[in-house]
Amino acid sequence: MIFQGYLADLIHNLKKLPGVGTKSARRMAIHLLDKDKEEALALAESIRQTVENYHKCSVCNMLTDTEPCIFCSDENRQSQVICIVEHSQDVFLIEETGVFKGKYFVLGKLLSPLDGIGPDDIYFPKLKNYINREKIREIILALNPSAEGESTMSFLATELENLVEKITRLATGLPFGGDIEYTSSLTLENAFKRRYSVKE
Amino acid sequence: MIFQGYLADLIHNLKKLPGVGTKSARRMAIHLLDKDKEEALALAESIRQTVENYHKCSVCNMLTDTEPCIFCSDENRQSQVICIVEHSQDVFLIEETGVFKGKYFVLGKLLSPLDGIGPDDIYFPKLKNYINREKIREIILALNPSAEGESTMSFLATELENLVEKITRLATGLPFGGDIEYTSSLTLENAFKRRYSVKE
Repeated sequence: MIFQGYLADLIHNLKKLPGVGTKSARRMAIHLLDKDKEEALALAESIRQTVENYHKCSVCNMLTDTEPCIFCSDENRQSQVICIVEHSQDVFLIEETGVFKGKYFVLGKLLSPLDGIGPDDIYFPKLKNYINREKIREIILALNPSAEGESTMSFLATELENLVEKITRLATGLPFGGDIEYTSSLTLENAFKRRYSVKE
Repeated sequence: MIFQGYLADLIHNLKKLPGVGTKSARRMAIHLLDKDKEEALALAESIRQTVENYHKCSVCNMLTDTEPCIFCSDENRQSQVICIVEHSQDVFLIEETGVFKGKYFVLGKLLSPLDGIGPDDIYFPKLKNYINREKIREIILALNPSAEGESTMSFLATELENLVEKITRLATGLPFGGDIEYTSSLTLENAFKRRYSVKE
């Protein structure tokens, strides 16, 4: 065993990061040791500070260091439209597009009966209260078009349709820059069915 | 600006890791916040402990938490053969192959006159003392076959040839699993020149 003690622990902990396998974790660990000690300690401190200062927004579950989060407390945002996402990260990605100016609600997970993830685990009671309290009129379901995303969207649409005026989901189709040759037949079939006038 | 304060700092610090760009750093940061707080704190603590417990071996410069390192202090290893590498990580990679049972010496850098990296920066005086003191007989140069690696190897070969019996470098040629079609012409030319009998 070459990697032992603290170094083995560090590699083990780094491997829990998304997209980091054994080789990258080793490379990162050695990098942290090899370079400026201050740089590595800054990263450690930065992780600690961030984790200790962030929590889930009491209103929408978004990760935040304020209470409520900057989206919930922003009076310039439309308050009767909410975009429902799976992860906090999705909020950052949507914000980067600048296309949406309403509020958010973060589910944290998608429904998955086989894994024992039911409505309570995706904060459904909290979502329902929020919709009633804030008199939400429109809901945008920005969930992945995966099996779990689809079933979560259909659950939410069924349960919430009587509470709001409009429930929409993000468009499905060919991604820009994608190549039809490498597109799944499900995507292609859907893209045919949902084709739209070139003048739109 | 969506990412601010501690979160922006964390992303900035994560981006200094090898192979981590803006998108991965954001994903990692959100992951650290989104998951178990304990897991993130364990990573922070692990970085801190490792950095504080590791240093360069006084003999060979290898990163180590013992003094001297486990390679220098291992009496079962051949003591008159040293393998010279650029990074501590290279030692781990070579150890994984199990092909080498001698000692190591880590240069830390390669010679690069344009960047002001000269013999002192690659611990050349320390290396020379080591070779004389330990009566080293064979040196294996395990450096990258890059411009800087080549010039470092030729510098070391010239300076050390009178001190030892044998100086070799790692074989150059086609990598196993590689494809001739995607091999550089320099590699291919070298592979022709250094071709060997199939019976070897």
